[in-house]
Amino acid sequence: MKRRVFEIISRAEEGDKASHIFDISIMALIFLSILAIILQSFENLSMSYGGVFHAFEVVTVTVFTVEYLLRIWTADLLYPEAKHPRLKYVLSFMAIIDLLAILPFYLPFVAADFRFLRMVRLLRLFRLLRVFKLGRYFDALSVIVEVLRESAAQLVISVVLCLFVMLFSAIIMYTVENPVQPEQFPNVIASLWWAICTLTTVGYGDVYPVTTVGRFFASVISLVGIGIIAIPTGIIAGGFSSAISKRGTDQEAAKQYCPYCGHKLDP
Amino acid sequence: MKRRVFEIISRAEEGDKASHIFDISIMALIFLSILAIILQSFENLSMSYGGVFHAFEVVTVTVFTVEYLLRIWTADLLYPEAKHPRLKYVLSFMAIIDLLAILPFYLPFVAADFRFLRMVRLLRLFRLLRVFKLGRYFDALSVIVEVLRESAAQLVISVVLCLFVMLFSAIIMYTVENPVQPEQFPNVIASLWWAICTLTTVGYGDVYPVTTVGRFFASVISLVGIGIIAIPTGIIAGGFSSAISKRGTDQEAAKQYCPYCGHKLDP
Amino acid sequence: MKRRVFEIISRAEEGDKASHIFDISIMALIFLSILAIILQSFENLSMSYGGVFHAFEVVTVTVFTVEYLLRIWTADLLYPEAKHPRLKYVLSFMAIIDLLAILPFYLPFVAADFRFLRMVRLLRLFRLLRVFKLGRYFDALSVIVEVLRESAAQLVISVVLCLFVMLFSAIIMYTVENPVQPEQFPNVIASLWWAICTLTTVGYGDVYPVTTVGRFFASVISLVGIGIIAIPTGIIAGGFSSAISKRGTDQEAAKQYCPYCGHKLDP
Amino acid sequence: MKRRVFEIISRAEEGDKASHIFDISIMALIFLSILAIILQSFENLSMSYGGVFHAFEVVTVTVFTVEYLLRIWTADLLYPEAKHPRLKYVLSFMAIIDLLAILPFYLPFVAADFRFLRMVRLLRLFRLLRVFKLGRYFDALSVIVEVLRESAAQLVISVVLCLFVMLFSAIIMYTVENPVQPEQFPNVIASLWWAICTLTTVGYGDVYPVTTVGRFFASVISLVGIGIIAIPTGIIAGGFSSAISKRGTDQEAAKQYCPYCGHKLDP
Repeated sequence: MKRRVFEIISRAEEGDKASHIFDISIMALIFLSILAIILQSFENLSMSYGGVFHAFEVVTVTVFTVEYLLRIWTADLLYPEAKHPRLKYVLSFMAIIDLLAILPFYLPFVAADFRFLRMVRLLRLFRLLRVFKLGRYFDALSVIVEVLRESAAQLVISVVLCLFVMLFSAIIMYTVENPVQPEQFPNVIASLWWAICTLTTVGYGDVYPVTTVGRFFASVISLVGIGIIAIPTGIIAGGFSSAISKRGTDQEAAKQYCPYCGHKLDP
Repeated sequence: MKRRVFEIISRAEEGDKASHIFDISIMALIFLSILAIILQSFENLSMSYGGVFHAFEVVTVTVFTVEYLLRIWTADLLYPEAKHPRLKYVLSFMAIIDLLAILPFYLPFVAADFRFLRMVRLLRLFRLLRVFKLGRYFDALSVIVEVLRESAAQLVISVVLCLFVMLFSAIIMYTVENPVQPEQFPNVIASLWWAICTLTTVGYGDVYPVTTVGRFFASVISLVGIGIIAIPTGIIAGGFSSAISKRGTDQEAAKQYCPYCGHKLDP
Repeated sequence: MKRRVFEIISRAEEGDKASHIFDISIMALIFLSILAIILQSFENLSMSYGGVFHAFEVVTVTVFTVEYLLRIWTADLLYPEAKHPRLKYVLSFMAIIDLLAILPFYLPFVAADFRFLRMVRLLRLFRLLRVFKLGRYFDALSVIVEVLRESAAQLVISVVLCLFVMLFSAIIMYTVENPVQPEQFPNVIASLWWAICTLTTVGYGDVYPVTTVGRFFASVISLVGIGIIAIPTGIIAGGFSSAISKRGTDQEAAKQYCPYCGHKLDP
Repeated sequence: MKRRVFEIISRAEEGDKASHIFDISIMALIFLSILAIILQSFENLSMSYGGVFHAFEVVTVTVFTVEYLLRIWTADLLYPEAKHPRLKYVLSFMAIIDLLAILPFYLPFVAADFRFLRMVRLLRLFRLLRVFKLGRYFDALSVIVEVLRESAAQLVISVVLCLFVMLFSAIIMYTVENPVQPEQFPNVIASLWWAICTLTTVGYGDVYPVTTVGRFFASVISLVGIGIIAIPTGIIAGGFSSAISKRGTDQEAAKQYCPYCGHKLDP
């Protein structure tokens, strides 16, 4: 019976109807749980249907708790060769997310702060990541992950460069604009907000330089910013370009024989 | 005679003058129909020339209806091997667009709502897509379509990731900013508007965080957003890079011979 | 003597001092002429030094006129094999720019409108393009031009797609927002301004949707817009990627011989 | 002993504990020095702890001065073959940065202007660049630097094109908008601020065209701007794409043999 429970809570195999229904139900519950967060944010809905939302939350947490306990119980079937399969499962990334998404509801002193609770429920969004394990999109996702991983060091460097330029810009801008706009640029941290808005080209327009010197520096920073943002885009584009070319080459490699004499051809 | 009608309403063949004139007239009518929508939006024009616009609309719908009926009539010449050629034509994408662009004008209860009618007339824009079938640009368009199709799965994944980050950002931002700016962040859906404006780097500046915590999260989200937007750009760039390289390779393939026996190699 | 004049006004050859001085003087005069436009835009400078600016303008136009006439006079040395060398020169792109930049100053009825005159003087900026003919940057520019030319058809298609989406967005947004914000979205042309600001992600924030339906459409349009802007970036990136790879391949092609047996190797 | 001092202030070799501690201490001092700039920008902190900040500044400058002098003293060990090793060191880029970051504190008439002093202290940020010399990220940084260097000429050209378009846009916009918005577009330099905000797609929304003609030109400029920004992104992406492909090819090159004689081929 334990094996059957394990089969049901694991990803459904072809034709296993009970397991399939279980998978879809959990997904639906996660979706509904996120939808509840969104709906509850409307004050009038939250007021009128407070009881419904609370009841639904109790159901959700109960189901997730049962699921979590069942997964711990059957962990020895998931990791048959591990020494401490249950410990290994509990310490896995997804299990920690699962725990964090339910635990606080059992702690009365935490549950009192409804804003903190919403943050905690937000963690359930990560549970949706399991959707990606499904079907043909998994392959596409793995290409994206691989490209990002291969260029990780370069991306980290360009992010560090970006932060460097931001800090630099913020300190210069604070120095130049603070005497004229003390409310907009009260300190370097506020100035950093301007730098991020500008270098990401979001440009809300809540903070901007008004002095000629400030505008000159802002212009230079904007232009540099475009270049700096072009670097990660370029790295990622280069990565995909190589990944696609390589896949093409691999596919062709199978037919790299001369069809007339049968010799294998070097690429 | 039916065959001649079919030839005229089909894409003109070289030298078929009547068919060519028909094609251009229909295109011109579509263009004028779109122009009429634009001009009618100017209140003073709409007032002064209301009768002219109405008369033009009647003419347009009549012509499009006749064209639509002729196309149904000659559908058996378009799909000579189909069992139900007329049904097949009526259910084709372009025929549905064509029908939707004229049908509502015959339904009096629909035609009363002029805003809905404008939306319906807007569908005629899609009829302009036929222009792309013409001339030398068709080749370029097919390269773009092919690149987008090949990387479709990856693009879908990155859009899903984007929506995921947007929802995540919106819920966090609502939690952080709602107590301070209840009018700007009244609920998660309004907060989602902020998330989209920020992650697409549009940044109108109608909604933006004012708390330090909110600005911190907004900064992180902006930076992540750049990375997420760099992914589809990178995928598309990589696709074009490979497509261009491949075309170059195909052109060179014509001059490739097996170095062992001298036979020309099929690519 | 005519040949000597031609040598001087043509691009300087190595060691031809007079010609070199002429080239630099003309460039300096164009630069100063542009600088004068900028300085004249400052009202107080324009007031105080009106006479100086006018005198400088007279000198500039005189020099440019003499240069233009000399170029016509020596056109038969520039195009020795042409039937009508002077006509050919006068109708060349750069000669038309040169003429347009000086002619209006001789037409009193035109010269009266100082705003039109500034536009005309702006044409001199194009004369600066000659700078690019100089030195080592010419090579880099020609690579950029070649990449853009090779992907011209695809770029045109993506611009047309972009305009198509803009028009579509503008009409939808006008329909949705006009009843609520008649001042911000008075007609489709004004709505087009919003569409361009949004799809280019500039987002000034002077016009933005306020209704929920409008924001929903604006969100979809923003996301589509990113994709559409990613297309030309991708095309250009792909073009450069291929251009750089090809150059590398060409450089290697020279050594594509087996260094041991001397056989030429197929790539 | 001089050699030992040199070893300590140089990059630590494996196992040299004293040198390692020295490196980390200097880095920490630079970090703290930047942190002090940020904290001092908060008026209340600057007021309350003015003495602490001043004391820390004295310590920092003293340590940096001693380090600078030691580096000059041991320069003959750094450049053993140079004729004037100390002069060579003093004129190196990093040494000039180091000097500029401490010298002004010894000049009483300069030190009086605390805003100028902050700018000077900002130079210490550049000293952080030494961090990049460390560890595994150095490799990734060198790839980025190499890609940027290889496409330097093209990037310079595209920046020049960008400045050209900006100047052009600014003059047109000043001409069109100045009569209607004299406060927003008082002169060409102010108009240039608009041009930079628009072409970089930052779009603060502090300055934007309101006339129909102005909006038409602004639309064209925005669209051109996207293309112009796509060029450097494309160049950088192309560079990375080639760099990644090349690295892949180099790795494969090790297994390439001449198909005629079987000798291993040098890449």
